[in-house]
Amino acid sequence: MFIQHLIDRIGADKVSQNESELFRHSHDESPHIAVEPEVVCFPHCRKDIKNILEIVNEHHVPVTAFGAGSGLEGQAIPIHKGITINFENMNAVVDFSPGDMTITVQPGLTRLQLNKLINRQGLIFPIDPGADATIGGMVATNASGTTAVRYGSMRDQLLDLEVVLADGTVIHTGSHAKKSSSGYNLTGLFAGSEGTLGIITEVTLRLHGIPESTMVARCTFEMPEICALAAQTILLSGIPVMRMELVDAQSISQVNMYGGYDYPVKHSLFFEFAGLSAAVEEEIKLAEELMHDLSCQDWKIADNPKDQKELWKARHELSYAYSHIQGMVDTGADVCVPISRLPELVIYARELIEQSGLNGGILGHVGDGNFHTIIVFDPNNPGEKEKAEFTNEALATRAIKVGGTCTGEHGVGLGKMKFQKAEHGEAVGVMKGMKNMLDPEGLLNPGKIFM
Amino acid sequence: MFIQHLIDRIGADKVSQNESELFRHSHDESPHIAVEPEVVCFPHCRKDIKNILEIVNEHHVPVTAFGAGSGLEGQAIPIHKGITINFENMNAVVDFSPGDMTITVQPGLTRLQLNKLINRQGLIFPIDPGADATIGGMVATNASGTTAVRYGSMRDQLLDLEVVLADGTVIHTGSHAKKSSSGYNLTGLFAGSEGTLGIITEVTLRLHGIPESTMVARCTFEMPEICALAAQTILLSGIPVMRMELVDAQSISQVNMYGGYDYPVKHSLFFEFAGLSAAVEEEIKLAEELMHDLSCQDWKIADNPKDQKELWKARHELSYAYSHIQGMVDTGADVCVPISRLPELVIYARELIEQSGLNGGILGHVGDGNFHTIIVFDPNNPGEKEKAEFTNEALATRAIKVGGTCTGEHGVGLGKMKFQKAEHGEAVGVMKGMKNMLDPEGLLNPGKIFM
Repeated sequence: MFIQHLIDRIGADKVSQNESELFRHSHDESPHIAVEPEVVCFPHCRKDIKNILEIVNEHHVPVTAFGAGSGLEGQAIPIHKGITINFENMNAVVDFSPGDMTITVQPGLTRLQLNKLINRQGLIFPIDPGADATIGGMVATNASGTTAVRYGSMRDQLLDLEVVLADGTVIHTGSHAKKSSSGYNLTGLFAGSEGTLGIITEVTLRLHGIPESTMVARCTFEMPEICALAAQTILLSGIPVMRMELVDAQSISQVNMYGGYDYPVKHSLFFEFAGLSAAVEEEIKLAEELMHDLSCQDWKIADNPKDQKELWKARHELSYAYSHIQGMVDTGADVCVPISRLPELVIYARELIEQSGLNGGILGHVGDGNFHTIIVFDPNNPGEKEKAEFTNEALATRAIKVGGTCTGEHGVGLGKMKFQKAEHGEAVGVMKGMKNMLDPEGLLNPGKIFM
Repeated sequence: MFIQHLIDRIGADKVSQNESELFRHSHDESPHIAVEPEVVCFPHCRKDIKNILEIVNEHHVPVTAFGAGSGLEGQAIPIHKGITINFENMNAVVDFSPGDMTITVQPGLTRLQLNKLINRQGLIFPIDPGADATIGGMVATNASGTTAVRYGSMRDQLLDLEVVLADGTVIHTGSHAKKSSSGYNLTGLFAGSEGTLGIITEVTLRLHGIPESTMVARCTFEMPEICALAAQTILLSGIPVMRMELVDAQSISQVNMYGGYDYPVKHSLFFEFAGLSAAVEEEIKLAEELMHDLSCQDWKIADNPKDQKELWKARHELSYAYSHIQGMVDTGADVCVPISRLPELVIYARELIEQSGLNGGILGHVGDGNFHTIIVFDPNNPGEKEKAEFTNEALATRAIKVGGTCTGEHGVGLGKMKFQKAEHGEAVGVMKGMKNMLDPEGLLNPGKIFM
């Protein structure tokens, strides 16, 4: 019955029960079990969202927001069914102010679409989680990725959010000022709340200038823990590195196999330096000295786009190299720890993978202390999935123990719920209080974040 | 009676009703009306804070946190009397991890004390609100200052807070990881909450490397709006400027009078560039070109500490130049607007000062779009205070209208309560909901932020 009401309220063209749409909205890119929504809505505007939330309240039916479906923790899987909101028709630019280096967009715009629009003005939106995620999805999970070492995570890019609350109230969480000490910081609270506190309908972002010059470099080390130490050394030197990524030897071997490359099969650090040209040259020179002091090998620089692409291929194609193994599924951890604990965590991760007997590697945004494992398992081989999950869980537990977090950038969703109490202790009570205050009926993306 | 209980609970040596202590804790550096607390506590540890909150609850008596008393909006004034907590005995370093570039401190440590401790390790804590505020006070007001253009505000420096809630529960809002997507972001929420949601007992901060090289520069312009345009030009160029400050001609004249200097009496932009040495040289060269393109005058560089201090004197001594006028009191606005609206706001601020007939100037952290007016009035001359306040209010109203905020860095306290509804609209309801959830009895710094 609620579906007919939904059609009456927002129009049949914005509502779909088509089997392929239900399937498309049943899963993300994780191995979490797929669940189809009962109906998918394609709103065009804030008014449609308000109308959908009225139906949600009237019929007491759950509602889940869906961006690009590129999530890795099942946030967009409607485990209690109900309504899924797809934002692909809400991808407009609301207000672009190049002089302020800010833009206001609807949540369905993807990060590559956004960059295409702003690059011609000399501006970039640098947050890069890999996938071409929607801005709304990236806000909802506090996404980050390779450039977080320089620009921070998604939360750090936000000036304002427009949010429709469960009761239909529309709020703005901030302003267009670059900083503010006025009122409680709701922007940061809604960022990373995974659709459990309200539905985001507009996002105002900081933009950044396109760096004048970019150079990339790569070097290798015999031991992964020296890679971690090397990353720490770069940070302490004050070089404002743009990207700094670890790829372990096993993963290099996998990528060589996948792409027919001949990268040296050693633990590798990939760098990107960007800024004014003399600055970049000085940075790369200093970085080379520091890396040689740590006995790096295979130091290689690329200063033109073609060579840069070539040099970074091993990093860029890494997840594909694992995920394209025929008949296999991959999963992985997303821990983030204080830099000083990174070496021991990387060693521990390698031990866990060895113990599991499965094929897997380590790659990391090591400038933040954030790294992932990728573990490949055969879903039809009994016990393999459990072994893979055990390594994820053991690693998350250790990360929390050393003062880190169970998820640096993927979010909680379904996979990290079980770690909330261990990581946040009594603060979980405060979080639940907020959830109850803003969503007393528990209809906004139920079954996520909290057990 | 509650005072005797307080003494019994935490010890007589930590409780004072001395008249001079009550007076010291009755005011901050603003012209807001002083109110003395009934008693001042000097806790040594978290346990003392928990005990104080027990007394607060048992006797239903208000409690207000007090840092260095350097606030500018009356946040630390106990307008409903009760207990004031002074943190001067809670100024220890709990955990210093230079390799992680993080430190955990108690809230009573001041920013200069902190820097003294960490500078020898090549690290700085760069947030500089001017006063030697306590870290706790800076967190509570989301302070920032001259370096926010490079490092952001206080909220951006926080990895974790330990907070004692009104009911005595102790929570940690974050972890020691550099980034996290786990759970709701409580760290950002408690930052800037001005002691109204809980009492902060530990703060874990990001630190930064001491830049290898620092250079400063100054230039002047005929019109203040060109200064604002110049600031925007620097930002768009991608120069990662460390400080960029506007001082208007009237204020230069005031400073010349105060210090016997002969700075050119024109609207002036002061710059600081910091980083690797070749980078700094390139930045300052590019900045000079950009400023000359805008017909700047009096471009002057200083590359050694002595000359740098000399060149920046006009900026550093500015508030003293106004506040030391015999028998007079000063007040000022703290608006922050999108950079593109800065020129019109600066013109408007000058018009308002002229209309008031009072002596006053404009100084700004123009890289953030944040600027202050300083207006001097004679408290014994009827109507002058009202005229000064009128300019503050007109400016805050205009700032909100153009998409900015009534307070960029001073906080709400008493002075900006009246703008909360205009700035935040329906979001004020959400903020009040959080306040009610975390402090149902309304005993934590009552009478602040919300009308």
